[in-house]
Amino acid sequence: MPLKDGDFVLLDYTLRVKETDQVIDTTREEVAKEVGIYRADKTYEPMLVVIGAGWVPRGLEERLKEMEVGEEKVIELPPEEAYGPRDPRKVITMPARRLSQRGIVPRVGQRVRIEGLGVGVVRAVGSGRVTIDFNHPLAGRTLIYEVALKAKIEEPAEKVRALIKRRIGLVPPEKFEVEVGEKEITIKMPEEAFYIDGIQVLKRGIASDIMRFLEGVELVRFVEEFKKS
Amino acid sequence: MPLKDGDFVLLDYTLRVKETDQVIDTTREEVAKEVGIYRADKTYEPMLVVIGAGWVPRGLEERLKEMEVGEEKVIELPPEEAYGPRDPRKVITMPARRLSQRGIVPRVGQRVRIEGLGVGVVRAVGSGRVTIDFNHPLAGRTLIYEVALKAKIEEPAEKVRALIKRRIGLVPPEKFEVEVGEKEITIKMPEEAFYIDGIQVLKRGIASDIMRFLEGVELVRFVEEFKKS
Repeated sequence: MPLKDGDFVLLDYTLRVKETDQVIDTTREEVAKEVGIYRADKTYEPMLVVIGAGWVPRGLEERLKEMEVGEEKVIELPPEEAYGPRDPRKVITMPARRLSQRGIVPRVGQRVRIEGLGVGVVRAVGSGRVTIDFNHPLAGRTLIYEVALKAKIEEPAEKVRALIKRRIGLVPPEKFEVEVGEKEITIKMPEEAFYIDGIQVLKRGIASDIMRFLEGVELVRFVEEFKKS
Repeated sequence: MPLKDGDFVLLDYTLRVKETDQVIDTTREEVAKEVGIYRADKTYEPMLVVIGAGWVPRGLEERLKEMEVGEEKVIELPPEEAYGPRDPRKVITMPARRLSQRGIVPRVGQRVRIEGLGVGVVRAVGSGRVTIDFNHPLAGRTLIYEVALKAKIEEPAEKVRALIKRRIGLVPPEKFEVEVGEKEITIKMPEEAFYIDGIQVLKRGIASDIMRFLEGVELVRFVEEFKKS
C-alpha cells in the first residue's frame, strides 16, 4: 500500500552529496563513526518523517510514497528535487564595512547572517570588499539518500509520542501517558519533563504539531501532577 | 469564633517601629503614599495569612487568633514576640580583606552577604577592619501592627486561589479554574500564565502550599489546554 501525505513513517537514512561523495548526515551510528561525523550528544535511530510536512526535501517525500515498509532504496535527487539550482545572483559582493559595522571580521569560509539576505558563506575578502554566497549549502548538488523505511505509525497515541519525541528528545517518549479522545488528546507529563528549559514553548509546539497532523484533533491538554511526598 | 492554626485570613495591616515611629510596611495604598514608601509595582490589598504558617511573626499570629472577622486592632509586639532581642555577639568586626576579596568596597549602611554569617549591615569601616551587624534589622524593636481582619476564607477553591495569587500576582486569580476533589485539587491554568518566567517552579510551590495547608489533599494537578486556532 503506497504512502500518502500525512502518513507517519520512521526512516533510517544516510545522505551523501553525489559530486563530492561526502556523507553529510545519517541516522546510523556506525556510518557516522565510519565517516567521522559521529556526535555523542545525538541519538542515532530511525527518524520520524510525516509525509508532506516538508521536514525533508519534497523530492524525497515523493519517492518515499512509492515505498513499502521494510524496503530499502537508494534515491538520487537532482538539485531541482532537492535544494534547487545554484543561483549566481545570490553571490553578492558588498563593502566590507557592512560586516565590520556589526563587529564581524570576515574570513573565507565563515558563515555570516546579514539582515534581509539571510545566512551566507564568505567566499572572498579583499580591498575593502567581501563576497558572500547566500545560496543554500546544498543548492546545485545532487543528493543521494540511502533510505530504509523501517515502520509506519498508525496508532494516534504512537503518533503523538513520536511528535513529542521530536521536540523532547531527552525523556523517553513512553513516559508520556497519552489519552486519545474524539477531538482531543490528553498528555500526562512525566515529572522529569517538568523543569526542562523552555518546556512551555515545547508544549505549544507539540500541541501545534498534533493539531496539524492528527485529523480532527481540536484540543491538546497537558496534565502535570504533584504528589504529597 | 476564634481563629486557629491553618485558618486562611485576609489581613490589612500597617507595621510601625515603636521606637522610631517609622512605618516600614503596609497593605494600604493611602498610607504608603502618605509616608513615602509607595511602590507602583506593588498591589495594595489585604494580604493572605495562613495562621501558623510563619509568614508573619509568631506573636502576631497568636494575637490574630483572638480576633473576629471585621475587627480592627492595634497590636504591640515586644521584641521577644517579634524578631527577638538584639544580640551583641552578632555584631562582628573582621579584616576588610574578607570583603575586598569578594570585590566589595564596604560603606557604612551597606547590606552585605557573607557566607556562613548571612546578611548584615556595615556599621563601621576603618584601618583595615570593618564592623558588620548580622542582627535582623527589626531585632530589639517593638513592633506596632495596625491590623484589620477583613475576611476569613472557608471554601477550599478560594483557599487554592489565594495560594495561587500569593505566588502568581500578575494573573487575576479568578482566571484559574479550580476543581476540588476528595483528595485532589485540579487547577486549569489560563493561557496568560503559560509563559510566565519560572512558571514550572511556581506550580511546584503552589502544589506544595496546597498540600501543606489543605487537609487531606494528596495530589495537585495542573491542566493546560491548547486549542486549534
